Amino acid sequence: MDRELLYFDDLAVGDKFTSGTHEVTADDIKRFAGEFDPQPFHLDEEAARQSMFGGLAASGWHTAAITMRLLVTGGPRLANGILGAGGEIEWKAPTRPADVLRVDSEVVELIPSRSRPDRGVVVLRSRTVNQRGEVVQTLTAKLMVARRAA
Amino acid sequence: MDRELLYFDDLAVGDKFTSGTHEVTADDIKRFAGEFDPQPFHLDEEAARQSMFGGLAASGWHTAAITMRLLVTGGPRLANGILGAGGEIEWKAPTRPADVLRVDSEVVELIPSRSRPDRGVVVLRSRTVNQRGEVVQTLTAKLMVARRAA
Repeated sequence: MDRELLYFDDLAVGDKFTSGTHEVTADDIKRFAGEFDPQPFHLDEEAARQSMFGGLAASGWHTAAITMRLLVTGGPRLANGILGAGGEIEWKAPTRPADVLRVDSEVVELIPSRSRPDRGVVVLRSRTVNQRGEVVQTLTAKLMVARRAA
Repeated sequence: MDRELLYFDDLAVGDKFTSGTHEVTADDIKRFAGEFDPQPFHLDEEAARQSMFGGLAASGWHTAAITMRLLVTGGPRLANGILGAGGEIEWKAPTRPADVLRVDSEVVELIPSRSRPDRGVVVLRSRTVNQRGEVVQTLTAKLMVARRAA
């Protein structure tokens, strides 16, 4: 099922998108942490139990990276791809082994560029949710999206 | 050379930290993108040349993950580790193959917790800089840091 290719002009505030799902394993958590966030509570079950996480937890940046994967593979199919200029991220709860994540997104603002008439900024608010419906992360991202040629 | 273990109470606004460095390869960029951000401009040199990046560029989330690695391995050595509640991220320039990144950080705010006297929030502003001195990313992160026992 092809998702429709969306330009800035096709989007409206309030448009919603739901991604597919992604299951996280303990091995994934440790592998990501070993490369990018080598702290005991992301690397070792026993050390994690002694920490304020109370058990193995994914790096927040791992949750962010999985969120991006879910957006790219099953979020809005934006013209020119998903190009972020930045955003605000909040980690609400840890991602745990065997969690199944999905991303619910909503367009919250549309800002046409004054200097570049061929593009605009789409502010997309994404909630990353686990299989129990708990929000593990919120991300409000500024995406650069191409406009339809006049 | 051991870095000093820092509690909330040891930090002051204006304190600065410089990380070690990390070289990024084209293979790293493609591997991260293949797993977390599978878009042509992060995966393939030729497709990247045709894109608005004008050449292979790392996923912003890859730059963020490398920044975390540099903070964990060579930034402030915080009591209880580097525990982020969230933050604001901005990507200023692409990370390219063979870039050598480092992270310069500064404490910009210290917020004692009212409800939890054993901790506080440290607002740390980090600039990720390449070998040409160009800022590729800024991150203003809220970190939870333990207080010294009274």
